Amino acid sequence: MLDPCSGLYTDRYELAMAQAYYKDGVHYDSCCFDYFFRKLPYGGGYVIFCGLDDLLNVIENIHFDKNEIAWLRQQGMDDAFLGWLEKFHFSGTIYAMKEGEVAFPTEPILRVEGNLIEVQLVETLLLNYLNFQSLIATKAARMRQAAGTRHLSEFGLRRAQATGGVYASKAAVSGGFDSTSNLLAAKMYDLKAVGTVAHSFIQSYDDELTSFRKFAEAHPGNCTLLVDTYETLKSGIPNAIIVAKEMEVRGQKLQAIRLDSGDLAYLSKKGRKLLDDAGLHYVQIVVSNQLDEHLIKSLLDQNAPIDVFGVGTSIATGQPDAALDGVYKLAEIKGQPKIKLSENIQKVTLPGKKQVYRYVDENGLFAGDIIGIWDEKIPEKMIHPFDPEKTLDFDSAKAIPLLQKVMEDGKRIIPKNDAKEVAAYAKERLALLPEEHKRFNYPHIYKIGISETLHKLRNDLRKHYKK
Amino acid sequence: MLDPCSGLYTDRYELAMAQAYYKDGVHYDSCCFDYFFRKLPYGGGYVIFCGLDDLLNVIENIHFDKNEIAWLRQQGMDDAFLGWLEKFHFSGTIYAMKEGEVAFPTEPILRVEGNLIEVQLVETLLLNYLNFQSLIATKAARMRQAAGTRHLSEFGLRRAQATGGVYASKAAVSGGFDSTSNLLAAKMYDLKAVGTVAHSFIQSYDDELTSFRKFAEAHPGNCTLLVDTYETLKSGIPNAIIVAKEMEVRGQKLQAIRLDSGDLAYLSKKGRKLLDDAGLHYVQIVVSNQLDEHLIKSLLDQNAPIDVFGVGTSIATGQPDAALDGVYKLAEIKGQPKIKLSENIQKVTLPGKKQVYRYVDENGLFAGDIIGIWDEKIPEKMIHPFDPEKTLDFDSAKAIPLLQKVMEDGKRIIPKNDAKEVAAYAKERLALLPEEHKRFNYPHIYKIGISETLHKLRNDLRKHYKK
Repeated sequence: MLDPCSGLYTDRYELAMAQAYYKDGVHYDSCCFDYFFRKLPYGGGYVIFCGLDDLLNVIENIHFDKNEIAWLRQQGMDDAFLGWLEKFHFSGTIYAMKEGEVAFPTEPILRVEGNLIEVQLVETLLLNYLNFQSLIATKAARMRQAAGTRHLSEFGLRRAQATGGVYASKAAVSGGFDSTSNLLAAKMYDLKAVGTVAHSFIQSYDDELTSFRKFAEAHPGNCTLLVDTYETLKSGIPNAIIVAKEMEVRGQKLQAIRLDSGDLAYLSKKGRKLLDDAGLHYVQIVVSNQLDEHLIKSLLDQNAPIDVFGVGTSIATGQPDAALDGVYKLAEIKGQPKIKLSENIQKVTLPGKKQVYRYVDENGLFAGDIIGIWDEKIPEKMIHPFDPEKTLDFDSAKAIPLLQKVMEDGKRIIPKNDAKEVAAYAKERLALLPEEHKRFNYPHIYKIGISETLHKLRNDLRKHYKK
Repeated sequence: MLDPCSGLYTDRYELAMAQAYYKDGVHYDSCCFDYFFRKLPYGGGYVIFCGLDDLLNVIENIHFDKNEIAWLRQQGMDDAFLGWLEKFHFSGTIYAMKEGEVAFPTEPILRVEGNLIEVQLVETLLLNYLNFQSLIATKAARMRQAAGTRHLSEFGLRRAQATGGVYASKAAVSGGFDSTSNLLAAKMYDLKAVGTVAHSFIQSYDDELTSFRKFAEAHPGNCTLLVDTYETLKSGIPNAIIVAKEMEVRGQKLQAIRLDSGDLAYLSKKGRKLLDDAGLHYVQIVVSNQLDEHLIKSLLDQNAPIDVFGVGTSIATGQPDAALDGVYKLAEIKGQPKIKLSENIQKVTLPGKKQVYRYVDENGLFAGDIIGIWDEKIPEKMIHPFDPEKTLDFDSAKAIPLLQKVMEDGKRIIPKNDAKEVAAYAKERLALLPEEHKRFNYPHIYKIGISETLHKLRNDLRKHYKK
């Protein structure tokens, strides 16, 4: 069985570097790395930071067992280093934004401090957890924007990346979905589990009406009928109405009908009318079939009377963006700030330990973020990260620091959170992000800048390395 | 810890249907379902079938433990049904193509036979395993096509869907990659693990040359140096050459240099010349940075002297297609063939138990596949699946049946295989697929048809249901 806390849950080069540090005797040198991303997914205006809780659980328990050490020996790794690695645990300190925070490109979302080996070793799993869950939570938040107060349910396990589907379900709820069809994720993460019925059930009976009756008898309190196996308007919905009326006689209520093909706007309107004409105003309409935020928005723009959206592939995989491009870069070593140079200024990293300040406007809405040096005075001037001629003034009294200590000396110091708490925080924070940053098409770019002090430090280091 | 054999690794509706079958007393009725896909990914001409070995392992051991049964009770499921479910194990029979087979749209790749509940219950996990691994193996096979005999290594764990990354690494090797950076996958699936070094290691020393020396000392037999941290041509490669020469004095050999940015065609040519001029003909060139089959092909078309391609996001996620659209559809119940109707003939399913025959031409190359009824005489006429006016004749002596029994009464009857065996079979089979079906742009469509018997059965059932 796959142990997510296995020290082997990493790229080989992390251990190769660790061995080199160990052999050089510098493995207890202190350092810090930043996690950040460069490109917003979906052509959108924000990312929802997600995956921190799972990450901290894994980092707290990461280890190499005897069997794994023996395997690494077979792989040609050094005996003395492996002796050290067998006793390895993570003893570093982590600062992070709150899970569910609205995050933007360039700014450090999380910082890891510790010795060279431990900080390097967690790179791969950190990126693996945060990139994927943040991508999915962001996708979910976009669909929540489109769906308003309608129910959103995640149905994507069959198209997910194997066991990664469990984390997709959790991140979907963290980003604003109401429920999932994935039972394992529901149990592991205390999510609401929902489900309807498949075409095969309807087909397994000689006629549709019988299949509906059988399903309703088995699920009197929780019955959704799939109405498109044969003919939606001529057979599926009329049969569902018959069953709903029979349920009423038994004091039960049909919960919903589900449409899984055809034109969902057209069929939902026709279906609503048929149900209403039969006095079944309470029967909800569930739709599914290749939905994403754009289709949901389009359906509601057409006033389609839909109560529940079931979303599969696009939420489980993050389609059309398959990955968030989050990276993990060295910022400081033995107290010395470091940068990674590049011909491209956008790829030059920001040196040193940093804080992110979020400034709010007179209405309490988010106005911009300044990345400053960790212990500098709260900045009052923002310099564009890649164009120093562009500056903006901010009021330091309106600044809120976003990075907080979440793990100290290898132990988490924030309580465990669940997907619903993350969702509540994401909702609260998104409400403070002005509309123009949230629209789907060409959103207004949120202002991110660096402080004068950080600007000077980066420039000094660039000059130093260019020499 | 996530148990992949948990019966909860499914969608809620599978259990909802199971409960309805149980309550109706039809749960021991026999049935069979087909796994197939409709759309080829990547605009390509084939799919490599992958994931069978993992799937059989899970299905053999699927179960519900007491804790899970108790949780389902809290979810409102029926007591009597849960009593039955607690003793559940899969006792059905599975037929499948060999893992690594070249597969095409519409044809059944796998068939599950058994009682209604067990066959329905495995749907989600079956789709979850086969869709993802087949997508990734197909992507890998395309990169193998582009890369020829160059070494392909999978570096994508940091962009994978959480723990799904382990299956991505395995499927990459199954489809033709040589190695992976993912240590957990390498250990679990006996894959070759490789790794280089990150920019952070180079930056953690005061100068590049020192960092190269330290890394070479730690890894004398297996040293790849990353040369683009500062300036590739002016600093990185010259320093790597210094270290290579120092290694020669110690009787060691520098294995490779890695380029991770800039124009890889230009830099690899310049780099090769610098290495060769220094007499370091044996030092290989590794490249990475957003590679896929199209970039690999382009680099080699430009005669870039690259020995190893390290591929991340595109192989770990299957970008730009995030999912294979494989589905699982009812074909027969209590010996009665069944179809799912649709206004669209392409979405009408093929009824009954079926076999897929592959016909070879006079050179032994694949010429077409006919889907026939399981026990009919080997077909000699192919009817286009959606246009009955189009037919083709084939020689039954040149037909090979593709579906073989792989599990009987819940026990696998084929030996376990590993990724290397799958890769060898996929390579052998792809060699028999004519070139025109393998080109990247608008490949020639491989001929898939149905037998006359199956055509008649489908038509009869359509008429029956239309009544």
